[in-house]
Amino acid sequence: MAKELPKLKTRITELLGIEHPIIQGGMAWVADHNLVVPVSEAGGLGVIGAGSMTPSQLVGEIMAVRAGTSKPFAVNVPMTRPDAAKLIRICLEQDVKIVFTSAGNPAVFTPQLKEKGVTVIHVVSSVRHALKAERAGVDAVVAEGWEAGGHVSREETCTLTLVPQVVDALQIPVIAAGGIADARGFVAALALGAEAVQIGTRFAATVEANCSIYYKNAIVRAEDAATVVVTRSLQPTRVIRNAFAEQLLRAEQRGVQEPQLRDMLGEGRSRLGIVDGDLSEGLLEAGQSAGLVKALRTVELIFEEFLNGYREVLKRLEGLQQRR
Amino acid sequence: MAKELPKLKTRITELLGIEHPIIQGGMAWVADHNLVVPVSEAGGLGVIGAGSMTPSQLVGEIMAVRAGTSKPFAVNVPMTRPDAAKLIRICLEQDVKIVFTSAGNPAVFTPQLKEKGVTVIHVVSSVRHALKAERAGVDAVVAEGWEAGGHVSREETCTLTLVPQVVDALQIPVIAAGGIADARGFVAALALGAEAVQIGTRFAATVEANCSIYYKNAIVRAEDAATVVVTRSLQPTRVIRNAFAEQLLRAEQRGVQEPQLRDMLGEGRSRLGIVDGDLSEGLLEAGQSAGLVKALRTVELIFEEFLNGYREVLKRLEGLQQRR
Repeated sequence: MAKELPKLKTRITELLGIEHPIIQGGMAWVADHNLVVPVSEAGGLGVIGAGSMTPSQLVGEIMAVRAGTSKPFAVNVPMTRPDAAKLIRICLEQDVKIVFTSAGNPAVFTPQLKEKGVTVIHVVSSVRHALKAERAGVDAVVAEGWEAGGHVSREETCTLTLVPQVVDALQIPVIAAGGIADARGFVAALALGAEAVQIGTRFAATVEANCSIYYKNAIVRAEDAATVVVTRSLQPTRVIRNAFAEQLLRAEQRGVQEPQLRDMLGEGRSRLGIVDGDLSEGLLEAGQSAGLVKALRTVELIFEEFLNGYREVLKRLEGLQQRR
Repeated sequence: MAKELPKLKTRITELLGIEHPIIQGGMAWVADHNLVVPVSEAGGLGVIGAGSMTPSQLVGEIMAVRAGTSKPFAVNVPMTRPDAAKLIRICLEQDVKIVFTSAGNPAVFTPQLKEKGVTVIHVVSSVRHALKAERAGVDAVVAEGWEAGGHVSREETCTLTLVPQVVDALQIPVIAAGGIADARGFVAALALGAEAVQIGTRFAATVEANCSIYYKNAIVRAEDAATVVVTRSLQPTRVIRNAFAEQLLRAEQRGVQEPQLRDMLGEGRSRLGIVDGDLSEGLLEAGQSAGLVKALRTVELIFEEFLNGYREVLKRLEGLQQRR
């Protein structure tokens, strides 16, 4: 990068060997090499979202990232995938240095990953699961609040209250996720005790991300109350409210139970929304921070905004103090 | 107070004539003169919660507050009260200088209050309502996130994403509420652009608050996932999960509709929980920040923690910056 940005040093930047405590969320259907390379090149951590990839696609994406950057990157493996073990094996075979695991028991893959020297980070949304991850030997956790896009927790604990409680409970460093899209949220997360932030929605609405421009524009147009959590009884998922989301909400309000809800949902709704850009029938996974995203940006510009903004916000907070 | 605490100056401290940008939430069944006096004496803004008071009780409480402090205080009038106009008239008759209105149309009472020179603050949970309040002529808004205790919004927008969007949309100053219980959340809220915080749950679990010790202890014992939103289809309300809350949740999951739900709810459940301390059959209104409350505190100690903590958190955030 041309410009030298102010740097922040935390246990997470040290652990991962990155310049800035900014991690890009491994979003299904969004986080491929097109996004991962510029994030890692900018000095953050790009994360491949394996959740929506076949095993051979994952191999290809790892190779494509390596072709684009020599800086650190990671792979996110959601343990809800029936073939999660295969994706983990690929990470090991391809000598991936950092793996994020999510939505499952951290004790399943952590030992074999740690044995091979891989840095393991587990995504949690409660203190109980955070403690479990620490006991399983992970190096850090992502504490993801209910504001986040896509799959969210049943506990519904928000970032503002989750992060400090996880920080208090653990010895290992904590990455804050959910609801952060600008320098103000970045400073807020670090004030809460996080040592890095994981950013999803803001990075989906970038020039570089390889998802539909219609989906990106839906994020840009989203206002503060644009998102809603659907399929609470199956797997709570935060999406931008659209015709299909309304249909799911009405069904749930009528007390429609799991099998019928699963039928309604069918397969491939997220792909339909995110990749194909079907704004009425697809699921438009996005966090509450969509309301803060007012324009498409390049990845580089987002780093500039976060890091220059950090200094500006701190200066403002210092300025509130009255000198005597 | 004996000790001189560091002071922060914002448009809210100027507007209200208070020393610290810390406002105590006007909680029904909790916020009477026992709590309001020490908060105002500590240099924050104590707020009488008229929501659970008869008109004559409100008169008595205003007099009791004036007997205890000569510093600024306010009254919160929830517009859901059928006799809200009467409560507003009492505020005018008693020459109350600051009135908070909530849960209703800000255009209804603002003109008559402003005409008498009263400072008016309206509680909002969306950008749309914030703009409406500003247009109605209020002096400031409380932007209350979904983490908050008691009545919460249908939009479910959390503090971390709500506050910066309301700040961006308005000219008047914004007070952040929901999910804040310590210095970390205090700094986070000001980083987001708020010019003060409104604190509910943390002030309910004080030595001074005149609510049941059983209810206070339920807050202290609460863990991160302790609260839940019940009666989403009537009036979403965040409470600590207990036997009665579970019963409501099960009914809603079965698709039980409004009239039966209203029957189940009956009258006086919040009073039963908060005043009488019935931990299984009462509604224990509390915010997600209950998980951060680990001990009963005096009001004075909370002010010390927030204000000394502000400096410590800022110092930590400054320390992350790498010198070249």
